[in-house]
Amino acid sequence: MTAFGYTLLGTDGAARRGRIATAHGTIETPAFMPVGTAGTVKGMLPDAVASTGAEILLGNTYHLMLRPGAERVARLGGLHRMMGWNRPILTDSGGFQVMSLAGLRTLTETAVTFRSHLDGTQYELSPERSIEIQRLLDADITMALDECTPHPATRETTEASLGLSMRWAARSKAAFQPQDGYGLFGIVQGGVFLDLRTRSVEALTGIGFDGYAVGGLAVGEGQETMFQVLDHTAPLLPADRPRYLMGVGTPADLVGSVQRGIDMFDCVMPTRSGRTAQAFTRYGKLNIRNARHQDDPRPLDPACRCPACTQFTRAYLHHLHRAEEMLGPILLTWHNLTYYQELMRDLRQAIETGTLAHYASDFHAAQAQGDLPPL
Amino acid sequence: MTAFGYTLLGTDGAARRGRIATAHGTIETPAFMPVGTAGTVKGMLPDAVASTGAEILLGNTYHLMLRPGAERVARLGGLHRMMGWNRPILTDSGGFQVMSLAGLRTLTETAVTFRSHLDGTQYELSPERSIEIQRLLDADITMALDECTPHPATRETTEASLGLSMRWAARSKAAFQPQDGYGLFGIVQGGVFLDLRTRSVEALTGIGFDGYAVGGLAVGEGQETMFQVLDHTAPLLPADRPRYLMGVGTPADLVGSVQRGIDMFDCVMPTRSGRTAQAFTRYGKLNIRNARHQDDPRPLDPACRCPACTQFTRAYLHHLHRAEEMLGPILLTWHNLTYYQELMRDLRQAIETGTLAHYASDFHAAQAQGDLPPL
Repeated sequence: MTAFGYTLLGTDGAARRGRIATAHGTIETPAFMPVGTAGTVKGMLPDAVASTGAEILLGNTYHLMLRPGAERVARLGGLHRMMGWNRPILTDSGGFQVMSLAGLRTLTETAVTFRSHLDGTQYELSPERSIEIQRLLDADITMALDECTPHPATRETTEASLGLSMRWAARSKAAFQPQDGYGLFGIVQGGVFLDLRTRSVEALTGIGFDGYAVGGLAVGEGQETMFQVLDHTAPLLPADRPRYLMGVGTPADLVGSVQRGIDMFDCVMPTRSGRTAQAFTRYGKLNIRNARHQDDPRPLDPACRCPACTQFTRAYLHHLHRAEEMLGPILLTWHNLTYYQELMRDLRQAIETGTLAHYASDFHAAQAQGDLPPL
Repeated sequence: MTAFGYTLLGTDGAARRGRIATAHGTIETPAFMPVGTAGTVKGMLPDAVASTGAEILLGNTYHLMLRPGAERVARLGGLHRMMGWNRPILTDSGGFQVMSLAGLRTLTETAVTFRSHLDGTQYELSPERSIEIQRLLDADITMALDECTPHPATRETTEASLGLSMRWAARSKAAFQPQDGYGLFGIVQGGVFLDLRTRSVEALTGIGFDGYAVGGLAVGEGQETMFQVLDHTAPLLPADRPRYLMGVGTPADLVGSVQRGIDMFDCVMPTRSGRTAQAFTRYGKLNIRNARHQDDPRPLDPACRCPACTQFTRAYLHHLHRAEEMLGPILLTWHNLTYYQELMRDLRQAIETGTLAHYASDFHAAQAQGDLPPL
């Protein structure tokens, strides 16, 4: 078996080029993880997801514990086997979705109880149960259960929330059964208060985790504030462990966060945007439903190697989205995930060659263009 | 260029094994044509459709003339090029959907005028315009415009409708510009009145077409009546032209119709059923949302070679449909189209080996089983 671990292969400024080894294979970092909420990346077969370059998926504990249920997934051989994805999977702890989706929540020191948004069934999620569920799912990377502090929050609220999260982090660590190739990540909280971020890092490194996530960002604080928190927090984290910025973000967020030393990302943006006709390209973001695309025989992005760009025109993609045909969301999801993976590949190459600042500058200039020139 | 034409390769009773040559390739018959209504087989990339074994698609003139518009499709290089399907395409005439979907219809000797169900825009569809649209779409097989006689209809209504359809058939033929590899089919009407079916065949063969469709069936008359009409009509049709039964049907409809000498079929059943959790298998039809599948680790059909069956369990397919995940309809569509194509391949082999009666008997016995035995 493979030992779980992070290898730092090189740096460019604060940015890191690395590799994570897991039971289901290795992940080149910086890496973007497509979100497979309920055991599927929406609209994509596993082979299609792999074809975009993705090496790891994220699964949502909250959705999976409700349906089909963690014990059922375990009976089906775990999440990899159930969904036909044989590469690494990271699962979140469920805490974030309990707070954003579930009804009638009660948070105590012990656990959070809530009602399913699907059928009202009551559930309890404690650090111990979250870790157990993630083991049942067979996650290569398990996340500690925390409370994602809302934004905005006062210092007092943030501090109290952080205290709970750190006690739950210790319980998560105690509940986690070490296994070759499997890792447990702690989550840094503390909102926008830099000294609380420091305190959180100290608490987590005291407990000791296989990787460290930065949580509680991209919740409305704005990119500038997010980058300030990263500028402060990333250097505090152990260099020999991967760093994961949760729920982020736009292409510009990824570039700026990689420049600040982040190794892993997840976000619904490429998939959700694809279903609502939004396409990410090297030249910015566009809405394919816009009438200006209706007769455009060009591909979405001439340099992209995805099926949407190599097999079809903008006019056809426009038609599919106007006609609300399933193939429209499928193709734009495929494209957006490909774009995100190509961005990460380019960032990795730029770090390897010590050209990240130059790459970032070109990236911002191209994005500012907005789109290809009109026909 | 290839001449359009049908080669009769062999027979088994009334059943025919043949091959149709078109500008975009050949079609082994009996053949089933998946329906690609608005320029896409719902939820499937063209490669996926081809992987099921399909050699020809059906496109809907009504939907395409409304959106994206026939002239726009022509500017984009035709339907094959627009949708990335380089094999043969048959388009219907638009008449059937005008009657079933459009609003405020007015039918005269000249044409039918109607309002789009999408935005209320008024359109006129005449035999000449239908043929022109199908040329703009670049259909390998163009269908004459007819009036699909509703069921039930009196003899008088049926006779009047048939008269109009036959006059429109002559106008369709006059409007069709012959082109190497492209063919025009006439449509036999006459409802359930066998002498009117005879009269329709005589009128059409008098005009002369590259193939003959049987229309106005599977509109509520029942399988027994449909087979009676086929028993009467098929032998009247020229042996050196393909015979197409429009809008049919269930697997049992296909088997019985092939036994009666039909060469081509189209139907939304495998695709539409796939989107509503209905799966066709060798052992009958099942609903994957049924709770009995929720822990079933077996494939939908152990003998099927489609991705739904080779990569996933019934339990997972059940989960996807319960969770209303796009991948559920995608996989069941893929499966159903594969099942239909494998059925057609088996029918072709049975005709080749003179074992069709035996095959049909085994088919009905397996279908009567209903499903795999419970776990």
